[in-house]
Amino acid sequence: MLTLDQARALDAADPLAPLRSHFELADGLTYLDGNSLGALPRGASARVQRTLREEWGRDLIASWNRAGWIDQPRRLGDRLAPWIGARAGEVLFADSTSVNLYKVLHAALQLQQGQRTRIVSERSNFPTDNYIAQSVARAHGGELVLVDHPDELPALLDERCAVLLLTHVHYRSGRMHDMALLTRWAQQAGVLAVWDLAHSAGAVPVDLLGAAADFAVGCGYKYLNGGPGAPAFVWVHPRHHGQVWQPLTGWLGHAAPFRFEPDYRPAEGIQQYQCGTPPILAMAALDAAFDVFDAAQALGGMAALRAKSLALSQAFMDCVDARLSGATVHTPREASQRGSQVSIALADADGHALMQALIERAVIGDFRAGSPDLLRFGFTPLYTRFVDVVSAVDQLEDLLRSGQWREARFQQKGKVT
Amino acid sequence: MLTLDQARALDAADPLAPLRSHFELADGLTYLDGNSLGALPRGASARVQRTLREEWGRDLIASWNRAGWIDQPRRLGDRLAPWIGARAGEVLFADSTSVNLYKVLHAALQLQQGQRTRIVSERSNFPTDNYIAQSVARAHGGELVLVDHPDELPALLDERCAVLLLTHVHYRSGRMHDMALLTRWAQQAGVLAVWDLAHSAGAVPVDLLGAAADFAVGCGYKYLNGGPGAPAFVWVHPRHHGQVWQPLTGWLGHAAPFRFEPDYRPAEGIQQYQCGTPPILAMAALDAAFDVFDAAQALGGMAALRAKSLALSQAFMDCVDARLSGATVHTPREASQRGSQVSIALADADGHALMQALIERAVIGDFRAGSPDLLRFGFTPLYTRFVDVVSAVDQLEDLLRSGQWREARFQQKGKVT
Repeated sequence: MLTLDQARALDAADPLAPLRSHFELADGLTYLDGNSLGALPRGASARVQRTLREEWGRDLIASWNRAGWIDQPRRLGDRLAPWIGARAGEVLFADSTSVNLYKVLHAALQLQQGQRTRIVSERSNFPTDNYIAQSVARAHGGELVLVDHPDELPALLDERCAVLLLTHVHYRSGRMHDMALLTRWAQQAGVLAVWDLAHSAGAVPVDLLGAAADFAVGCGYKYLNGGPGAPAFVWVHPRHHGQVWQPLTGWLGHAAPFRFEPDYRPAEGIQQYQCGTPPILAMAALDAAFDVFDAAQALGGMAALRAKSLALSQAFMDCVDARLSGATVHTPREASQRGSQVSIALADADGHALMQALIERAVIGDFRAGSPDLLRFGFTPLYTRFVDVVSAVDQLEDLLRSGQWREARFQQKGKVT
Repeated sequence: MLTLDQARALDAADPLAPLRSHFELADGLTYLDGNSLGALPRGASARVQRTLREEWGRDLIASWNRAGWIDQPRRLGDRLAPWIGARAGEVLFADSTSVNLYKVLHAALQLQQGQRTRIVSERSNFPTDNYIAQSVARAHGGELVLVDHPDELPALLDERCAVLLLTHVHYRSGRMHDMALLTRWAQQAGVLAVWDLAHSAGAVPVDLLGAAADFAVGCGYKYLNGGPGAPAFVWVHPRHHGQVWQPLTGWLGHAAPFRFEPDYRPAEGIQQYQCGTPPILAMAALDAAFDVFDAAQALGGMAALRAKSLALSQAFMDCVDARLSGATVHTPREASQRGSQVSIALADADGHALMQALIERAVIGDFRAGSPDLLRFGFTPLYTRFVDVVSAVDQLEDLLRSGQWREARFQQKGKVT
């Protein structure tokens, strides 16, 4: 069980420790909610100011070419590609995760040519994924079929199943699927595998090409630190390009958008998955966020990030086991099945009130109601310290012992936590 | 025909003249491309910095509630509403114009319950609108039918026609449709009227409720000055709420997004047209842009903006007629049929090269290839001066007389102009 002295020693020896200085995070803050909103990269303010004042304010419309705005969705995609096992030119930043999921699910169902119309997923998947999947399945005369446990998935990979839609790392439990294995099972049954990397990109190893996945989407504002509502990303295996059209046929997915042709004609490759004009200000912040990943690459890359993430989450689980009575870890113990967060359930405390009390003590995680209610703690290896693990457990232990979480001001439920 | 002295006198007497100081525009710059990308409002930098450093950087995830991020799409919609003849609570900023058009066209075709599946529009409509309409019409087993001239529209408003899709102010010619009349014709034939306000919002009077229009979408980065790729907006007449689902059923369009229910259940009203997480940084810039509209409201509002816009475009057309031989105005002379831009065709010059030469002389308009090729000049009443009209014509006249636009460096075609 980690002591404060041990934690300080681990931080001192951590090769990634210098990366925290790339973020605007107060020393006294224990921020364990990067799985919901990544911290502000220090370079983002200057980068966004440059885009605002020089590119937009001074150069105006010329910046579409001069500042490369028009290519920004692909350029950012190229910066992400090596972190998710894709190649340059294969990834596009555009729209939101939900909109990108809509595009790829429609494309996947078209690839199945009406022979298969079911989408299979987990009932506990992040709701927006299931809502979008319901809509798309219905549009193709099919249905969304949900399982309560991953063990039930193989039996549903039958001749009616078009798509297996899974979030790689579960938003509640932090459980990580075996992408290669499940993709193989799906494809052996003629099913296309669509992966949501919202809680994976930038936090855990992902090898889309290695797994021969079919489609992937993901979020820019969690572990990628692109800022609130940052553009999302989409990836399509090259073997599927040119086969079908995604339905959001906006001008920037056209083969020749500036020829203003009367009929739609899809661009080649991932470009067809762009729709409208890219959000340049938001992309400027995301661009600065990738500078931190460049720095991480120089310090050991994903192998180093993953090793630190697992060490942090393991240390946290050990402390929870040893020090927090009534707390149960709801995240797989097995490293290969764990993302970059740990969720705990509490037998004797109201999780929402406890999290509010914790936040007041400058330890920020979040609360997810459900069965069971969970406290989530994200361990972003770019900026989380081993002392943060100790701080979080110290405060949790003190709140549970003292019962101070019961105070009235913590009992009011907020809309977003 | 306007002289420089007269222009200076008009600027001195212009009640809206102080508004130019709300924008980052150099004195020597004649910016007539606000119909493509609006200028940078001076308040935007500070507003975006506050969102970056305080809301995101310091307050992190708490800002979803504390800074009101979660309500920003509706709050911005409320700021736009009076400028387009809508009421507070009816307008939402979200996604791109193309994506919003996709939502409302699907909703409109669902309202027609499969009885009518045709979408009718103009062949010369901005291509993304027609591309999206093709996709939606096909998804409903219908087709997009295009006319070459608006006079052909009434004959197509028959029992097969589900939707009349028109851009209110034409992106090439600047011609403005009679929204009330065309909406009435459409509805008398059982057709729903969908309006694209990309070149209208913030520039010309729009009265969606007065016209009893069915749906509208529009762009945040043209006359609204929200910045490159700013979020777009969507409006749905209240009579259509609760009747159908738009298909991009993301979590933030759910009736109770934070209850994480397994099944999709649409929110009431315009909120159902939201899909994913809102782009907060981009919305901060747009928020600052609306501060300038507040200032404009105090100086006479849309009536004053429209009067100035028409005076500017009339003065420009008069100068073109009198001073530019070989130039033909391609925009309606009739004020009621004119938006806030003037397009001209040239008999004896390459329009693209001429525009490049003009831009080098700090007069920025843009070029749109077609039949005929057009030079477009947008007269944003918030910041365009009468001296800008004179400067533009002075430079055009000199370039055409001297033939300097023929120089080799102007002949290279750029991707975006």
